[in-house]
Amino acid sequence: MIYLDSAATALQNKNSLQIAFEAYLNDGYNPSSAYKEAKNVANKIKMQKAAIAKILNCSYNQLYFTSSATESNNIVLSSFLHKKGGTILISPLEHASVFSPAMRLKQFGFNVKELPITREAQLDFEKIDACLTTDVVGLFAIFVCNENGAILNIKKLSSIIDKYNQNKKEKIHLHCDCVQALGKIPISLEELNIDSAAFSGHKIGAIKGSGLLYLKGPLTPIYDGGGQENGIRSGTENIGAISSFVYSLEEANANLEVNKQKALGLKSHLLNSIKEIDKENQVVILPVGDTKLILDEELFSPYIIQLAIPPLPSEVIVRIFDDNDIAISGGSACASNRRSKALRISMALKFPTNIASSTIRVSFGYSSTKKDIDQFILVLKEKILPLAKKF
Amino acid sequence: MIYLDSAATALQNKNSLQIAFEAYLNDGYNPSSAYKEAKNVANKIKMQKAAIAKILNCSYNQLYFTSSATESNNIVLSSFLHKKGGTILISPLEHASVFSPAMRLKQFGFNVKELPITREAQLDFEKIDACLTTDVVGLFAIFVCNENGAILNIKKLSSIIDKYNQNKKEKIHLHCDCVQALGKIPISLEELNIDSAAFSGHKIGAIKGSGLLYLKGPLTPIYDGGGQENGIRSGTENIGAISSFVYSLEEANANLEVNKQKALGLKSHLLNSIKEIDKENQVVILPVGDTKLILDEELFSPYIIQLAIPPLPSEVIVRIFDDNDIAISGGSACASNRRSKALRISMALKFPTNIASSTIRVSFGYSSTKKDIDQFILVLKEKILPLAKKF
Repeated sequence: MIYLDSAATALQNKNSLQIAFEAYLNDGYNPSSAYKEAKNVANKIKMQKAAIAKILNCSYNQLYFTSSATESNNIVLSSFLHKKGGTILISPLEHASVFSPAMRLKQFGFNVKELPITREAQLDFEKIDACLTTDVVGLFAIFVCNENGAILNIKKLSSIIDKYNQNKKEKIHLHCDCVQALGKIPISLEELNIDSAAFSGHKIGAIKGSGLLYLKGPLTPIYDGGGQENGIRSGTENIGAISSFVYSLEEANANLEVNKQKALGLKSHLLNSIKEIDKENQVVILPVGDTKLILDEELFSPYIIQLAIPPLPSEVIVRIFDDNDIAISGGSACASNRRSKALRISMALKFPTNIASSTIRVSFGYSSTKKDIDQFILVLKEKILPLAKKF
Repeated sequence: MIYLDSAATALQNKNSLQIAFEAYLNDGYNPSSAYKEAKNVANKIKMQKAAIAKILNCSYNQLYFTSSATESNNIVLSSFLHKKGGTILISPLEHASVFSPAMRLKQFGFNVKELPITREAQLDFEKIDACLTTDVVGLFAIFVCNENGAILNIKKLSSIIDKYNQNKKEKIHLHCDCVQALGKIPISLEELNIDSAAFSGHKIGAIKGSGLLYLKGPLTPIYDGGGQENGIRSGTENIGAISSFVYSLEEANANLEVNKQKALGLKSHLLNSIKEIDKENQVVILPVGDTKLILDEELFSPYIIQLAIPPLPSEVIVRIFDDNDIAISGGSACASNRRSKALRISMALKFPTNIASSTIRVSFGYSSTKKDIDQFILVLKEKILPLAKKF
């Protein structure tokens, strides 16, 4: 099978899995227990946090292991329940694990508003000032959009918020979902100057169940229990997931630039190949047709490409590729089986309906190859385009 | 090392770990994706749920995989935030992952009251009726107390609540933390007739990160996201943890009665051995001195024993055992490094201070042996009792 769905989940890295296996076997003691072996595990977790802190450029005690990025995002969003209300701003490009809990906050008296974005899926900075009303308590902006790979300018955003906060008693909390950025594009939490961030291990080859939360300063969560992770995330520490996460992050970080250039090459090859075979312009490159813009690594992740082949519905395209042993997504995997939610971001970007319902996502992993792309192009040329023509 | 701390976390079952390893390797696709391999994973998860449902006597669609029992408990407790307030009743024997989030509900206008218990750590059914005021919305009772092994009569409790609910518009939601019961004493969710229950995999030999939630009917959680687990627990499914959980539960269930009798034998041997060596009655058997009661498998788990050796503080006892390569807990592992919280249950049981601060917990796993007990007794006799005498 040709796997072009790494943004949904990376193929399991075998070394990272082996690391998890050994941690479960040898370091399975409960770190809250008081004997030597248990304390050793607690120490290892601390050291692993320090290793991550070094990579992400923050302090180890600002990091909290969770079970997923979904949980990390929810810890931050649900903590707003301790406030009496206010306005939460979210980018229209957020993952469901930010969007849906934000919508839930509406039931608790919060206003939730979407930030303006451009057609190119970038924050519309000219219009942002007007959104920063005095009752804004939180702002959620995804680093790399999982559907179309757009990279939001978080640094510029945080400098605006920072300036704004200086005159405010109640500061705006700025959160960034960094799932598709981790191990793919450089992240310096100090430079980003955000209040919190969410990360996932299984998107970079670690085992599932490995999530991470960065908090610049402490917050009061809603969930509680044994008080692990400094009270931010209770529950017995998942030593296998933690060890696997750290291994995968270190590996991804060591090869970040090489992998990025490789992905950019694949992306360029894919777009060029489409141009070659698509004589009748049936394929729509999203979110904007401008290939030069889509290949700008400051604006779009090299790892994610969004396409549409109207009038074919996403499901049909995904199924034909599946029949030809190629795995891709229609929209994002997390929403692909829930149609109305799947269209949310396309609608925000004002895609015409026939394009919105035809989007697919091709996403690369570290082990993706030119051959994978060529096979994708072959199926596109021989199966998809002819069908789209007569559909 | 002699491991007598299985209630904190079971020693990793190697077969169960191998199952997790293979699941991560072969079934790592995102079950929300639309291609064959991903759908196969989604199907496997459904089948694994069905296997659990058969063991726990419920329907598979009443089960939701989570990352831990802490998370399962919190999903239920935080869902009360959708109500406008009311009284939450909890047993004084609850785990921190019920107690602490319940206390947090106080900040949101809920009353939280403790149910009356007897000196024998049983629910005081004579006094329960008086607690069931009209504003009670939830009742949380642990099946097996993790500190002293007391088994609460959940069936009797649920029949009282059931009768009470018949005349009420707003029903009382009855939740049961079943962590120390799972795989140790028989559980039939249908017979228990509770509204929700929490389970943990790592306490029966599965890998960490494997939790389960039973819900008789749906509820509205606070966390949200991709809508996995029917919207009850969002986040990419942890196929390794799920597979490991199911394997360990099936194994535990197949050997439940044999293991239980073995544990009862070990418990009896431990108590008898103490009687033999403890000529000056230095060891206090908790929560009541009556050995016959403590060995009653209807009232106390065969797997957990609570002792005190005053005037030695828990930490000193744990350390001496540790120095002699025996792992035990002082109180529960989850609270052992947080002293005041560690005393909560002891205080509810009205232990004198010198006893409360001297409690230790010895807990058996499936592979515990008579030899382990004999070694424990040897250290108790040669190191602990002499020290306690001159302390």
